[in-house]
Amino acid sequence: MYFRPEITAMAGYTPGEQPGALSKFIKLNTNENPYPPPPGIRRAVEEVLDRGLQKYPDPLANSFRVRAAEVLGLPSKDWLLAGNGSDDILTICTRAFVGPGELLRLPYPSYILYRTLAQLQGARWEEVPFNADWSLPAAFGDSAAGLKLVFLPNPNSPTGTMVSREAVLQLAERLPCPLLVDEAYVDFADFSCLDLVRQNEKILVSRTLSKSYGLAGLRFGFLAAQPQMIEQLMKVKDSYNCDALSIAAATAAIDDQGWLAENRGKIVATRGRLSQGLAELGFEIIPSQANFVWATHPRHAAKPLYEQLKSAHVLVRYMNYPGWSEGLRISVGTDEQNDALLALLAGMVK
Amino acid sequence: MYFRPEITAMAGYTPGEQPGALSKFIKLNTNENPYPPPPGIRRAVEEVLDRGLQKYPDPLANSFRVRAAEVLGLPSKDWLLAGNGSDDILTICTRAFVGPGELLRLPYPSYILYRTLAQLQGARWEEVPFNADWSLPAAFGDSAAGLKLVFLPNPNSPTGTMVSREAVLQLAERLPCPLLVDEAYVDFADFSCLDLVRQNEKILVSRTLSKSYGLAGLRFGFLAAQPQMIEQLMKVKDSYNCDALSIAAATAAIDDQGWLAENRGKIVATRGRLSQGLAELGFEIIPSQANFVWATHPRHAAKPLYEQLKSAHVLVRYMNYPGWSEGLRISVGTDEQNDALLALLAGMVK
Repeated sequence: MYFRPEITAMAGYTPGEQPGALSKFIKLNTNENPYPPPPGIRRAVEEVLDRGLQKYPDPLANSFRVRAAEVLGLPSKDWLLAGNGSDDILTICTRAFVGPGELLRLPYPSYILYRTLAQLQGARWEEVPFNADWSLPAAFGDSAAGLKLVFLPNPNSPTGTMVSREAVLQLAERLPCPLLVDEAYVDFADFSCLDLVRQNEKILVSRTLSKSYGLAGLRFGFLAAQPQMIEQLMKVKDSYNCDALSIAAATAAIDDQGWLAENRGKIVATRGRLSQGLAELGFEIIPSQANFVWATHPRHAAKPLYEQLKSAHVLVRYMNYPGWSEGLRISVGTDEQNDALLALLAGMVK
Repeated sequence: MYFRPEITAMAGYTPGEQPGALSKFIKLNTNENPYPPPPGIRRAVEEVLDRGLQKYPDPLANSFRVRAAEVLGLPSKDWLLAGNGSDDILTICTRAFVGPGELLRLPYPSYILYRTLAQLQGARWEEVPFNADWSLPAAFGDSAAGLKLVFLPNPNSPTGTMVSREAVLQLAERLPCPLLVDEAYVDFADFSCLDLVRQNEKILVSRTLSKSYGLAGLRFGFLAAQPQMIEQLMKVKDSYNCDALSIAAATAAIDDQGWLAENRGKIVATRGRLSQGLAELGFEIIPSQANFVWATHPRHAAKPLYEQLKSAHVLVRYMNYPGWSEGLRISVGTDEQNDALLALLAGMVK
């Protein structure tokens, strides 16, 4: 009645499966890091508590921006925008670029949130299927009436595949609008497009600390882009979108690149063992550059497997993409979690 | 170029004056609480750190909602929506109700953020001046073409004045759209409208923990409304809009109503002394129900006073409302900060 028609038309909000923190589930369904975050976070948070929380946080999260620019090799903090998770960054960009009735483009299959963001703006969206080799067709870079923003998750979810740096650069050159490269999973990949923001102002790169820094509970993400883009995007964010505790913790986290390299090494090694173990059970696996793998089985439907795993207290993500495939997206956990999962699956697909 | 015209037309982002946390400024410009937050917050935060931050937080902040519903006397958690500060709540409501070209109404003078929220939506806004006695004219409750949302800060900023419960109820009955009563400062006031959400689904009440719980650094606010309203609004928020540390800290804070009562007592007492001290210096003071007072002086312009105070390391807020007044909005600090401010002003207005 009182709501915008776009809102009432939307499906009800369904949070992901989050069993309580103390539950006994092995949780391989939302691509969280199985290891605790960098140890420096505790001291950073406690320092903020010691100073007190009664003052507003730095509205621009400059301590984080300064350190992150150094770590990432960007010219200055002015190339970075901090957000309350990379969801906040994606929301800010959608609101900044895409008006009602205008067009947002994304690949298919891909991250379902992008469609929700278009819907909230009363915008249209267009899904362009990947090629069979997980590259993108030329149509992904074409102009179109009202096209205002293109999302490209790289690595993609649920496939874990990547589009090359050359392809990203060419897409940005051809497109009439910004190309947001969502690098949520890039710390587990072989390459990144972050430095390409220097070459084309249309390239925007988003990152999150949720996955590779083990900080999903903290809500911290950021965008890298040329300063004249960042300057406009800042008008759209809430004045104090990041809190004092998460700014401090995020700064401590990105400061610890040694931890990141070590954690990445463990996840990538387990990813290899997981992929091989699944293949040995007859699953078809897409080679993944992320901290999850997409698995289908030629003789077993995905949903019953998901349900049997759940009843055995192992949560993976069942996903169904009409016109493409259904399957299981399995997050890379610890080696022990991996072994438990594979043992269960071995009993199911025999 | 790539941005929506509404965005490029907006003025650049200007963060409020936030001298560094370790600076020697007496900060009476952003209505922060001068006292540290409830002590239970530290343990709540440390418990989250002990569990680890690698998992996503509860997307609905249910632990907070359950406890807050009890404390506030609401039927259940389903009457509450948690937000990343009440700014997040105001953004969610604006996006949910107000489409491009539609109308948002607010009183004048009032909180300037409301206009920014309309602007970001490409919506129109209409400012209705308060009556001389700080009640609202009947026009504030009239229908108008495209009217989709009405904001009413109660207590209002910068005046600290309030509209009665009877007036709020009558406005909601007459209006064709939701009436968002922004109670950011209500814990310092003599009454609240929170329970009125039971009587009319058009009444939405927002709160923040930034002011009365001393948690501006935490970013936590909430909305009280009927469950069918909350259900729709949840579709608009980011999936994980509150982080695990702030959910835990906010739950601990609202649990400590003894702390709140004591803190409120101190602030209200100092507010009385501040108002009296300013009056004795010849300032005209509007009786305030908030943790700030609005002060003008018949013989001294506000801006030079603001600047002299700033050079003496006391920050107050200079504000200029065209067509109404310019003046100083002075936050209620500790008694010591109060005495320092009054001593400086005594030297300036002699």
